[in-house]
Amino acid sequence: MSPTLAEVRAWDAADPFAAMRERFDLPAGVIYLDGNSLGAAPRAVHQRLRDVLATEWAEGLVRSWNRHDWIGAPARVGAKIGRLIGAQPGEVIVADSTSVDLFKLIVAGLQRQAPRQVILTEAGDFPTDGYVAQGVQSLLPGVIVRAVPPDQLAAAIDESVALLMLTEVNYRTGARHDMAALTAQAHAAGALTLWDLSHSAGAVPVDLTRAGADLAVGCGYKYLNGGPGAPAWLYVARRLQDALVSPLTGWMGHAEPFAFDGDYRPTVGIERFLCGTPPMLSLLALECGVDLMAEVDLPALAGKGQRLCSLFIDCVEAGGAGLALVTPRDPAARGSQVSFAHPEAWAIMQAMIDRGVIGDFRAPDVLRCGFTPLYLRYEDAWRAAETLLDILETGAWREPRFQARSRVT
Amino acid sequence: MSPTLAEVRAWDAADPFAAMRERFDLPAGVIYLDGNSLGAAPRAVHQRLRDVLATEWAEGLVRSWNRHDWIGAPARVGAKIGRLIGAQPGEVIVADSTSVDLFKLIVAGLQRQAPRQVILTEAGDFPTDGYVAQGVQSLLPGVIVRAVPPDQLAAAIDESVALLMLTEVNYRTGARHDMAALTAQAHAAGALTLWDLSHSAGAVPVDLTRAGADLAVGCGYKYLNGGPGAPAWLYVARRLQDALVSPLTGWMGHAEPFAFDGDYRPTVGIERFLCGTPPMLSLLALECGVDLMAEVDLPALAGKGQRLCSLFIDCVEAGGAGLALVTPRDPAARGSQVSFAHPEAWAIMQAMIDRGVIGDFRAPDVLRCGFTPLYLRYEDAWRAAETLLDILETGAWREPRFQARSRVT
Repeated sequence: MSPTLAEVRAWDAADPFAAMRERFDLPAGVIYLDGNSLGAAPRAVHQRLRDVLATEWAEGLVRSWNRHDWIGAPARVGAKIGRLIGAQPGEVIVADSTSVDLFKLIVAGLQRQAPRQVILTEAGDFPTDGYVAQGVQSLLPGVIVRAVPPDQLAAAIDESVALLMLTEVNYRTGARHDMAALTAQAHAAGALTLWDLSHSAGAVPVDLTRAGADLAVGCGYKYLNGGPGAPAWLYVARRLQDALVSPLTGWMGHAEPFAFDGDYRPTVGIERFLCGTPPMLSLLALECGVDLMAEVDLPALAGKGQRLCSLFIDCVEAGGAGLALVTPRDPAARGSQVSFAHPEAWAIMQAMIDRGVIGDFRAPDVLRCGFTPLYLRYEDAWRAAETLLDILETGAWREPRFQARSRVT
Repeated sequence: MSPTLAEVRAWDAADPFAAMRERFDLPAGVIYLDGNSLGAAPRAVHQRLRDVLATEWAEGLVRSWNRHDWIGAPARVGAKIGRLIGAQPGEVIVADSTSVDLFKLIVAGLQRQAPRQVILTEAGDFPTDGYVAQGVQSLLPGVIVRAVPPDQLAAAIDESVALLMLTEVNYRTGARHDMAALTAQAHAAGALTLWDLSHSAGAVPVDLTRAGADLAVGCGYKYLNGGPGAPAWLYVARRLQDALVSPLTGWMGHAEPFAFDGDYRPTVGIERFLCGTPPMLSLLALECGVDLMAEVDLPALAGKGQRLCSLFIDCVEAGGAGLALVTPRDPAARGSQVSFAHPEAWAIMQAMIDRGVIGDFRAPDVLRCGFTPLYLRYEDAWRAAETLLDILETGAWREPRFQARSRVT
């Protein structure tokens, strides 16, 4: 039994996060269910970037590395992200892309774990994670990438495993691992854990310290609303920092970058995982998104996300559309997204987008709808379900214009 | 004999690039001789970034990957940079940082050159280049980094060398290598060349095709005026592209990034050197700087750069200040910068900055002045020399406030 529009409007009226929606610059007539691909723009980013361009770059020029603390920005924004995911001060830094950060931590983790050489991961995780691990395997003789289905993971954690590398929330299914339990099991077998939190940070409660996590990476442009291609971030538990050296030994990770020493000497602390000069405009835009997230009660926010997901599932299933739910029904076992499978998922999603409901298609057959609790209303979830049901009932997705594939999905 | 102020003003009046200065947003009262650390802001960047934030990110959201061709931006901007350095279409792409791009090309180049394992480079090149090579040496057993003084380079190119890795224009001294001659010598010995063009692109005439160069990287935030930490770019000669695979196998380098295949399969062409999602705000700001550079006659522009450098040298030396010129006197043998050595270079540069002449200090004893011909006037070079001479004559640099060191220099 799904609620009426009047009922969900009452939920919105009582929503403690309702005012947050006004802090985002959202297009009119759009229900945006793709914040897990690219988060919406915080209103504050317009003025912040105007200042960065006019005051920091144009007026301050090279002096802004000191005057506006550009040099401290990767650690400053990293520390703010750290507070969102239960890291301790000095355990998170913003740097490079998720893929590059994965490479750093996989290689550094393997070196720490020698002679173990197995990277255990989940078949069907976000491809770049597997690709980076395969790249390491091609580069370093002896390294083995073992990808198993999620239900075989626990059984595959044995004393050959150097690194257990997992995406906490699966990008396609939305299924969420039990980070604390898997970390404990990995540690019992002598393995380190490397968590990809791209679909977790800002969406579900994460507590790296309590989980005893070793290493993690995450994306800046999804639930953190950092802007297109926002820099990524990485986490290294303090107890491991001295023992791990990044294979990407750029000058920003040096103990004294401006001494211009001839020999590489990694600095102490999380800054040793920096490499080259960070893309400052993108990094300072990311800070706007992170600052918004810092204002809210994260467990409560994640609770709203789960209610949005459940509402959408209930409404779609009450409509009797015959879609197969891919995402776990249990809120504790999923991220802030709902995926349904349908053989014509591509065309159906194009028809939804045409009506202003922007979700995502994920190959081969998944309709993926992300629910960002910071700026979505219960009414949005209700209307999105109504739109999907209408498209299925009327067969509107059969129009030829919804069949053509674009380069990016 | 150095010219008078009236004479250099006449040169400015006749300068065909004079109007270009108005295309930059420069602070009042500043003579900016640090465009080789961070280039000035093109005026166009303010409006461009406003549009990117409002129209592309906030309004377009995830649709902008197609609608505004974000997905094509790394290759599009790369092609524009390629035209500035004599590359052929499809040989340059914007990606990551200079350090990360060096890592990709060093590792890919070494694999192509097996069983050779020697990276020959110059002692005293920009530290990050050497650091990255040292990181590769630590990672891959057998790799040897051989760093020799510049005058011993030619003699050190032998049949053990896999890769000759050089910064064409030295960041500290401004000395410029003969790219064509060294490339020919490297090829005769069976070595590949990897050029760091961070201090060359946009400053001196570069013709990678005519030089027969194999691989190159460069910075976006110096003479290309791409903004703080602008993404870097890399060049791979087309004849080598199929044979080289990046060790950083992120999804953007995959043949079909949105097929979400489990196995990494590099795409054909320069896009295979992409890794993760590019920082779009920083990348589109870079495009503004590159577009400005595309409007000018580069050899003529570089000629103006050399006249600025010569004027500065002449004025300083005519003042009898006793500074030691570090940069080659021959314009063909140097980049668009002038370095003088002085034991108190740090304090002298702080005193110059205090008077609005912003140059750079480079450890241990170098006053570095970059001359960006796009936005500098002959009068600027003349006045900069006058300021330097006055500081030396009066001993103004002895004030205690000019002694304190900051984090970034």
